[in-house]
Amino acid sequence: MKREDVLMEALPYIRQFHGKTIIIKLGGHAMVDPKIMNTVIEDAVLLHYIGMKVVLVHGGGPEITEKMKAMGKEPKFVAGLRVTDLDTLEIAMMVLAGKISNTIVSLIAQNGARGIGISGNDGNLVIARKMDAQKVTIEDREEEVDLGYVGEIQRVNPGLLRTLLDSGYIPVVSPLAIDEQGNNLNINADTMAGELAVALDAGKLVSLTDVDGVMDKTRTNIYYRLTLAEVESMIADGTIQGGMIPKLAACIYASRNGVERCHIINGNAPHNLILELFTDQGVGTMIRG
Amino acid sequence: MKREDVLMEALPYIRQFHGKTIIIKLGGHAMVDPKIMNTVIEDAVLLHYIGMKVVLVHGGGPEITEKMKAMGKEPKFVAGLRVTDLDTLEIAMMVLAGKISNTIVSLIAQNGARGIGISGNDGNLVIARKMDAQKVTIEDREEEVDLGYVGEIQRVNPGLLRTLLDSGYIPVVSPLAIDEQGNNLNINADTMAGELAVALDAGKLVSLTDVDGVMDKTRTNIYYRLTLAEVESMIADGTIQGGMIPKLAACIYASRNGVERCHIINGNAPHNLILELFTDQGVGTMIRG
Amino acid sequence: MKREDVLMEALPYIRQFHGKTIIIKLGGHAMVDPKIMNTVIEDAVLLHYIGMKVVLVHGGGPEITEKMKAMGKEPKFVAGLRVTDLDTLEIAMMVLAGKISNTIVSLIAQNGARGIGISGNDGNLVIARKMDAQKVTIEDREEEVDLGYVGEIQRVNPGLLRTLLDSGYIPVVSPLAIDEQGNNLNINADTMAGELAVALDAGKLVSLTDVDGVMDKTRTNIYYRLTLAEVESMIADGTIQGGMIPKLAACIYASRNGVERCHIINGNAPHNLILELFTDQGVGTMIRG
Amino acid sequence: MKREDVLMEALPYIRQFHGKTIIIKLGGHAMVDPKIMNTVIEDAVLLHYIGMKVVLVHGGGPEITEKMKAMGKEPKFVAGLRVTDLDTLEIAMMVLAGKISNTIVSLIAQNGARGIGISGNDGNLVIARKMDAQKVTIEDREEEVDLGYVGEIQRVNPGLLRTLLDSGYIPVVSPLAIDEQGNNLNINADTMAGELAVALDAGKLVSLTDVDGVMDKTRTNIYYRLTLAEVESMIADGTIQGGMIPKLAACIYASRNGVERCHIINGNAPHNLILELFTDQGVGTMIRG
Amino acid sequence: MKREDVLMEALPYIRQFHGKTIIIKLGGHAMVDPKIMNTVIEDAVLLHYIGMKVVLVHGGGPEITEKMKAMGKEPKFVAGLRVTDLDTLEIAMMVLAGKISNTIVSLIAQNGARGIGISGNDGNLVIARKMDAQKVTIEDREEEVDLGYVGEIQRVNPGLLRTLLDSGYIPVVSPLAIDEQGNNLNINADTMAGELAVALDAGKLVSLTDVDGVMDKTRTNIYYRLTLAEVESMIADGTIQGGMIPKLAACIYASRNGVERCHIINGNAPHNLILELFTDQGVGTMIRG
Amino acid sequence: MKREDVLMEALPYIRQFHGKTIIIKLGGHAMVDPKIMNTVIEDAVLLHYIGMKVVLVHGGGPEITEKMKAMGKEPKFVAGLRVTDLDTLEIAMMVLAGKISNTIVSLIAQNGARGIGISGNDGNLVIARKMDAQKVTIEDREEEVDLGYVGEIQRVNPGLLRTLLDSGYIPVVSPLAIDEQGNNLNINADTMAGELAVALDAGKLVSLTDVDGVMDKTRTNIYYRLTLAEVESMIADGTIQGGMIPKLAACIYASRNGVERCHIINGNAPHNLILELFTDQGVGTMIRG
Repeated sequence: MKREDVLMEALPYIRQFHGKTIIIKLGGHAMVDPKIMNTVIEDAVLLHYIGMKVVLVHGGGPEITEKMKAMGKEPKFVAGLRVTDLDTLEIAMMVLAGKISNTIVSLIAQNGARGIGISGNDGNLVIARKMDAQKVTIEDREEEVDLGYVGEIQRVNPGLLRTLLDSGYIPVVSPLAIDEQGNNLNINADTMAGELAVALDAGKLVSLTDVDGVMDKTRTNIYYRLTLAEVESMIADGTIQGGMIPKLAACIYASRNGVERCHIINGNAPHNLILELFTDQGVGTMIRG
Repeated sequence: MKREDVLMEALPYIRQFHGKTIIIKLGGHAMVDPKIMNTVIEDAVLLHYIGMKVVLVHGGGPEITEKMKAMGKEPKFVAGLRVTDLDTLEIAMMVLAGKISNTIVSLIAQNGARGIGISGNDGNLVIARKMDAQKVTIEDREEEVDLGYVGEIQRVNPGLLRTLLDSGYIPVVSPLAIDEQGNNLNINADTMAGELAVALDAGKLVSLTDVDGVMDKTRTNIYYRLTLAEVESMIADGTIQGGMIPKLAACIYASRNGVERCHIINGNAPHNLILELFTDQGVGTMIRG
Repeated sequence: MKREDVLMEALPYIRQFHGKTIIIKLGGHAMVDPKIMNTVIEDAVLLHYIGMKVVLVHGGGPEITEKMKAMGKEPKFVAGLRVTDLDTLEIAMMVLAGKISNTIVSLIAQNGARGIGISGNDGNLVIARKMDAQKVTIEDREEEVDLGYVGEIQRVNPGLLRTLLDSGYIPVVSPLAIDEQGNNLNINADTMAGELAVALDAGKLVSLTDVDGVMDKTRTNIYYRLTLAEVESMIADGTIQGGMIPKLAACIYASRNGVERCHIINGNAPHNLILELFTDQGVGTMIRG
Repeated sequence: MKREDVLMEALPYIRQFHGKTIIIKLGGHAMVDPKIMNTVIEDAVLLHYIGMKVVLVHGGGPEITEKMKAMGKEPKFVAGLRVTDLDTLEIAMMVLAGKISNTIVSLIAQNGARGIGISGNDGNLVIARKMDAQKVTIEDREEEVDLGYVGEIQRVNPGLLRTLLDSGYIPVVSPLAIDEQGNNLNINADTMAGELAVALDAGKLVSLTDVDGVMDKTRTNIYYRLTLAEVESMIADGTIQGGMIPKLAACIYASRNGVERCHIINGNAPHNLILELFTDQGVGTMIRG
Repeated sequence: MKREDVLMEALPYIRQFHGKTIIIKLGGHAMVDPKIMNTVIEDAVLLHYIGMKVVLVHGGGPEITEKMKAMGKEPKFVAGLRVTDLDTLEIAMMVLAGKISNTIVSLIAQNGARGIGISGNDGNLVIARKMDAQKVTIEDREEEVDLGYVGEIQRVNPGLLRTLLDSGYIPVVSPLAIDEQGNNLNINADTMAGELAVALDAGKLVSLTDVDGVMDKTRTNIYYRLTLAEVESMIADGTIQGGMIPKLAACIYASRNGVERCHIINGNAPHNLILELFTDQGVGTMIRG
Repeated sequence: MKREDVLMEALPYIRQFHGKTIIIKLGGHAMVDPKIMNTVIEDAVLLHYIGMKVVLVHGGGPEITEKMKAMGKEPKFVAGLRVTDLDTLEIAMMVLAGKISNTIVSLIAQNGARGIGISGNDGNLVIARKMDAQKVTIEDREEEVDLGYVGEIQRVNPGLLRTLLDSGYIPVVSPLAIDEQGNNLNINADTMAGELAVALDAGKLVSLTDVDGVMDKTRTNIYYRLTLAEVESMIADGTIQGGMIPKLAACIYASRNGVERCHIINGNAPHNLILELFTDQGVGTMIRG
């Protein structure tokens, strides 16, 4: 394929995306290989320069677990959520807002744009409340487990993000929130991305995970395009199962609330973000509301 | 070459050109093939969408000549300039501002952006004065020939262009001007492009002609990069001769007055504009001040 | 009448018109005498300087016909509309946007303001579609005649006009439009003026024609003031007949859609525009909605 | 003279004055006839509507004297300045800012514009200091007389006036000032007008007095146009004498500090303001710097 | 109480009032002691500097009466309203807009902020109509008495106040208005304050009177907090009687139309304004809608 | 002291500080007691609400040391600077930007304002280069020790801080920077505060340390006011010695570069910040340039 043909193939997408907001969720697992990570940021900077308003939301589960162990704490999960005591919250804040955000901001600088790392508590961006205790079955007995400093988002004040986007920055958001009393809370990064997409009236929400997209039952074929209705019916009839269901939750929420396109793509292959957005077929699953 | 590699190769250029003004001169000869013409406009629209401020300046010599003949008038040239009586001026205005500008604006619309055709007399954009009579030798006798309504630019009021660029339009400029008494004057399109580039403090002036660039004496090798000093010395020592010298005049003027890069490329090959700007070697001659 | 009394008589009108938008339609027949033409532009510039937002829309029928004949083409009309093949369209564009617009812009400059010539396709200002074939009776047989590149306005995007008016320019608009595929189309100038008046929420639409206004049946007395209802009932009962009916169409359309005052005046007497606007009786017919 | 000719004669002046600031000084004597007064305000409102930034500065000497007498106080003058004790200052403030300003603001409203009465102490507009005691000869003895609350202008903070002008109001200014300690001071109205003209970088200062302008020695012929140099030399050689010299002081100060044109006209004839500005000869004396 | 504790006690109020508009009505009786008056202005300037938008509205009844007597006119009241003939109106304007406003503006300057004195007729701020003749019983006969130039507010155009507040000035408003014919009218100052509070969507209306607030029937205990409903029911059942009822009228009007808090406090004790606003109990009566 | 007197004593300071920028450096040692810490933030929020532009810069040395030990790393210092290998840098980033910034932002939220935690690499705020190796004498031998990722500030791009301040946020800045290659570097917090004060043209730089200010030689009396010249001469003649000299470095740098007042106060007593700013004597040392 000739250079000029690639650029011309991209033109209609560039035109269409111009001025739109895109939320890119970087999964913790998708950030392990620094080289791949750099191609993701390269892609994000390209989107910025062709006129999109780019917001990055990152997780950091594997690194939080690693740091906890280094400090002699044993991670504990209930219903897929990290039980977060005060020490764990402090480690999570340090890893998310201290280490990962700064690393991503540096990569953005290396690629020629200006990033800024913020958390959901900066500028009262994300207001949450402590999540209710979860009922879990432990050795045949149902128990209520208090998750500690884990939050459920109440509302988003997107003013700070709009200010930063309008001033030409690429915000890099850690999944933390603040409650009405001013306490910090840990937030699921997918949920955070979905809420920000809705609050910013985003055109796109792209989730970079470690699978290729929504697969059929044989696990060999990818669904490139799905409607929200199809996703919902495929969950209802069991076609979509297991680990993909929670992954889709933020997409479903965003699609129902006006986000035009949600994408689930594999963040472990270089430049998948650009290929998904700038080619007709794409590389992962695109869901439209 | 893979799609993603092409886009990543373009990223540094996109970053570097972002927000810069580019003046693109479309030579009359380079506008004959509608298909090629469309690729030029595709390229210009791409530059617009990646954040450049694009101004098109077009000539129209061949079409003016053709229309004059269709109306029974014989074109006449002195020292390479068209002798322009009132009827000729009217025909030039009709062809340039009536036909060619509208055609280009339509192509821009077809490619998804918004153009606007203006002349140098709109908004008092280009103020000129009638050019002095030219001394020419006719049959061994030196004579002074009055060129009629041919103008020499006095000054440019770029306010209208800035307003249009800031509002997201792609201006398409006909090489006409107005004098202090409100008369219209015909202007050489290369001169016009150079003056606009300087007045708008443009980062780039690209001239689409019907040759590949500045060639060496053998006429087989192209000079891809030249400094202003090299161009001036190659003219002085006779390396550059003939028809290329007037072609270079606007580039030399622009380079001396702060325009960072001037390009001379062949407008008859598809997408040469993009290839010149987005690849390291380019396809024509780039001159830096 | 003393100077100061004239100016004081004008004061209430100046106050009332301040900041309002006025669309002035210059009929092709009303533009034949350059001296008269200049007084029209003088008047328009005065309106501009006392704080009105002035938009000129011009026709050009007689000149198009003349140029067609000069190029050996025979003009053809169906139901009062010019049959417009590609060659005719090109001539219309050249005459309207190339010659007449530039002439008017020069006159504006000579009177000390800044004009800018645009067409309905500039900035996607006027979107139209090809008009349906017209049923006409030719030698007792009803036939459908395709009018060619003649457009019916679909919608107006007044953004470009607002930008220009807010920046202090007087737009001079040629009656051309663009369709969704990017083709140029010829538009009736009266229709164009009416549509622009509505799209710009104009306070006034003034049509400069070659008759003195709406006359009574004896053709000796002019109606100076009419309501929209009166005009409609006078058409219904046959008081208004013949050539005046199509002339009134744009006024009726504009009045029904919120334009406060429409005027039909004779453009062949000097300064009729000012006299109509700044005197109590006026010189032509004023219609209020 | 025909209506349209009057308006066209005014056009070049309207164009030239557009956006310029004009300070109009209304002398106390020129405000005695309410009908004349109304024509002055009519003129000022016309200037406002054709795009000038109009500031009115008024005196009020005769009315202050009258009110003082009504309250049983005997007015006293030294070197042409009113000796101003605290009671006199209170009466001056009441007459100037309470009565005259409100009267003028009402006339502006009646003529369809929006005025606002302010004093030099509003918004710290005019900072002054108490004037030094004046040496006067009383019965052959030279004495120093303290003028009381009479001020000498130190500096002008034109911010408030700019805010009001930019918001479309016509400021009506009483000649009062404030000193650094927050005391009110009485200011000569001509001096005030001159200082405001300079501080606002006005294009024009017009003084409405009760004489026709600067006259020659025979007192029969008026000088319609004078340069600043001519005025200065005519004062030096005694051509201009007596009461006209203090009247010219503000004009000379303004002309020396960049105000383009100063006019001295008779405010007792209706519409002299408009006639001076909109006719070639004018009715009074125009001084250019 | 320690300095820092006072400031910290104030912090929540400062936060809560930040950016809110406050209308402060200065009663004529509350302005008699210059020292007290200065503490009121000190308080107002403090409110300005902590970010409130402060508007002062003053009365002036006692001083108008005094000046009338000094000029040999006998004040006359009907139904608590001053019968206002032309002479009385002139005196009222002079006292209110000439003397009192200037005095307050000077005090503001002395306290380091910038005030500006305006009347309700400046900028067409308050449009009123002449109040209907009042029926009064004089010696057993019911008569209609024409109050003269006393106005009833029709509407408020708050544009001028917003412009001044946004530019950082403290407006000082005299209770005068203008009718549709441009006549000045005298307005009750409480009514004026209430109308401005509603028109500006104020957060607070504070009335500085010469009583301590709403008292219980024993006249010994003050009601510190009342709801609008309580006030209305206490008027209905006779708990609130006599002179307090008209004083409450503006509060009731403002509370019903969205003003959050109205305060009635004694203006004769120093800094009561600050104490009412910055302490939990306050010093007078606070009414909430 | 009465409430109202405290507030009135504060008024001149509030007026004087209104709109000024203040940089508050929170020393690591001054942040150990959460209660004291909260009073510092209360004070900062009060400053914000009375109209100052507040920027907090914090250190974190003791906590970094503690976390290093918890992770089994031994802290090492050379010439008072922390030797920073990659692991140490990661811990510093986590403590500074992850833990301390978030804690301060939460305290700001609890006090009713909106903070935002940023590092010097966000938005390319602080560009630094790796510091040269330091010459130190170890066991009688002079050695060069590479400090690792410790930076020397090259320049500050204050755009991001201005954007945040203009939007009403209180920025909380971690002392980190970025070099031209996009690497993160550790910065001395005092130096950072001084550089930001100069770059933002701050009116004040306040350093909260664990001493009471600059003391005389007896260590019993504090110097409340010093000029820059006095400080410099007291360092030269040995009056100021030891640990205070590096503490003063940022003050001297800021004073020399236009910051009007620098304060060194003890951050371990509640509300010292407010007492220093709002009382005449203050509680620490104020240095003026």
